[in-house]
Amino acid sequence: MRATVMYAAGDVRIENVPDPEIVEPTDAVVRVTRACICGSDLWPYNSLERSESGVVMGHEAVGVVEAVGGDVRTVSVGDVVVMPFAFSDGTCIFCHNGLQTACVHGGFFGNAEVPGAQAEAVRVPLADGTLYVLPVAEDDALMPSLLTLSDVMGTGHHAAVAANVQRGETVAVVGDGAVGLCGVIAAKRLGAEQIIMLGRHADRIALAREFGATDVVSERGTEAVEKVHELTDGYGAHSVLECVGLDQSTQTAIEIARPGGAVGRVGVPQDEAMPASQPAFFHNITVSGGPAPVRAYIEELLPDVLDGRIEPGRVFDRVVGLDEVPDGYRAMNDRESIKVMVNPT
Amino acid sequence: MRATVMYAAGDVRIENVPDPEIVEPTDAVVRVTRACICGSDLWPYNSLERSESGVVMGHEAVGVVEAVGGDVRTVSVGDVVVMPFAFSDGTCIFCHNGLQTACVHGGFFGNAEVPGAQAEAVRVPLADGTLYVLPVAEDDALMPSLLTLSDVMGTGHHAAVAANVQRGETVAVVGDGAVGLCGVIAAKRLGAEQIIMLGRHADRIALAREFGATDVVSERGTEAVEKVHELTDGYGAHSVLECVGLDQSTQTAIEIARPGGAVGRVGVPQDEAMPASQPAFFHNITVSGGPAPVRAYIEELLPDVLDGRIEPGRVFDRVVGLDEVPDGYRAMNDRESIKVMVNPT
Repeated sequence: MRATVMYAAGDVRIENVPDPEIVEPTDAVVRVTRACICGSDLWPYNSLERSESGVVMGHEAVGVVEAVGGDVRTVSVGDVVVMPFAFSDGTCIFCHNGLQTACVHGGFFGNAEVPGAQAEAVRVPLADGTLYVLPVAEDDALMPSLLTLSDVMGTGHHAAVAANVQRGETVAVVGDGAVGLCGVIAAKRLGAEQIIMLGRHADRIALAREFGATDVVSERGTEAVEKVHELTDGYGAHSVLECVGLDQSTQTAIEIARPGGAVGRVGVPQDEAMPASQPAFFHNITVSGGPAPVRAYIEELLPDVLDGRIEPGRVFDRVVGLDEVPDGYRAMNDRESIKVMVNPT
Repeated sequence: MRATVMYAAGDVRIENVPDPEIVEPTDAVVRVTRACICGSDLWPYNSLERSESGVVMGHEAVGVVEAVGGDVRTVSVGDVVVMPFAFSDGTCIFCHNGLQTACVHGGFFGNAEVPGAQAEAVRVPLADGTLYVLPVAEDDALMPSLLTLSDVMGTGHHAAVAANVQRGETVAVVGDGAVGLCGVIAAKRLGAEQIIMLGRHADRIALAREFGATDVVSERGTEAVEKVHELTDGYGAHSVLECVGLDQSTQTAIEIARPGGAVGRVGVPQDEAMPASQPAFFHNITVSGGPAPVRAYIEELLPDVLDGRIEPGRVFDRVVGLDEVPDGYRAMNDRESIKVMVNPT
């Protein structure tokens, strides 16, 4: 089959690789009907050290089950499924607590050990715990929004949950990428009254407003902090969604939270230490978040997607075939595209 | 009156200073019947730069109201009161939310602007919001425990609240100082089943066990992390109370929390950046806490003190008069004493 292989920063190729097969009796093989490129794929796109073997990329997909191992019970050939970016057994203590990204037998797609989903097909470990069967056909018009349940919408929701978004309160979203935009959807969905988007790309800001952002702050650093305080009676936001992961964005997130507020971070931190530890402490700001247990959130978010109450699929502003995936990486990296959907068929 | 004045690291003197007076109509003057030395007083004791004027130290006290300004309504001359370490107006948005340490008109005792309570008397700004009137006489036998409501017991409780301590769960307490010991009391009080004390001082560990600690880990660093994992089926603690504030203790606190768990920190962070940001993120660990709104907690903790269900006053293992306060600092700094109570009369 054809798959997206990254060999080094900037070196993404579409190649023929062996077809995925059932290895463990708990595996499934899924034919990928839609995948996408994640903002987090841009970290290796900018920094991956060259390897001979390369990495089959991609951790977000919807598709159709093509084969299942002998121990798979809840997923059948022909099922249309969401593949969350982490696989999980569904039975361990953390899965039971809804934190599938800490599953004791779990892991992530798109690395040297577990090939990814920017491909014609993908092997899914622990299929029963991992895959979520959708009540729609594979060509459903809602597919773009359903695809976001594999990561970006669940991740935006996780940021909002971690930031303790409450009805009627003020939320700030740091980062206008696809996750930040889904964070706006999540904040609105949870009843936030004021939603301040911190971002500077006209197309993304326009979409943020359609999703429910009430204010936009395009400044950065201390100017952004001042602006958010002006917009919040001098207090700062109750909840801040950190959707970038850089030192400066995290510092800004902490500084725009009001005393007693919370920062929900889903941007993968690029630095070992967290900035602004002392301001966070002196203002009693809670810092929470991490890899989103999107598997847990599908149940809650799916009805809103099916009923059209939320349309996270609108973050996709480009659709490419597999051959154009390398250019999709370039386009997202150049901020030419918000998020690229991949149609591998 | 006589008061404790710190001029530089290690230079603590008892001196005659002007008597406190009503300055603002919202002030009260409190005759101090009991004060104490705080672990956080040891930071300046080890690092304060020399000044000509010095600082009147102390932010924890119980006493008797001697005078009130014309606008004071809820506190009267003769009342026996707790003076929390922060003053607060009791009316602002943060006070209403129970976060008096973020009061928009508030501040802290024991600095150049607001003289402290290791003295015969103290001026208390915003007396109505700050002081809590006790239903006991000034010579009540429970005074040591009541004194802890001004800081250390409320701070231990805050660590437990910030760490989301739940009935039946596992709690680890990093630091066997007076705050850590009160953290054990708080965790036990909130129903924790397993309470692991990380500390290495025999006297403090013994007290921790009496307060409810079920396990003790005296190792440090990676060895401590391994030990806590051994004690928790390999998972780590649901809640971790960080009661030190150093880089290493914070790192340990994060590393012994189980995925999805929480660290409640009340040790004043000595570094601008927080370590272990990436482990905290990848394990979805919440980091919360800060200066404890002890004023808000008195209401909840007082009945347990009055009924003898908790005895936080046992953290005091030495009582000194004002003249011996400099030696009290030395004794706490040398870990010869857990916490020193001051009887200024």
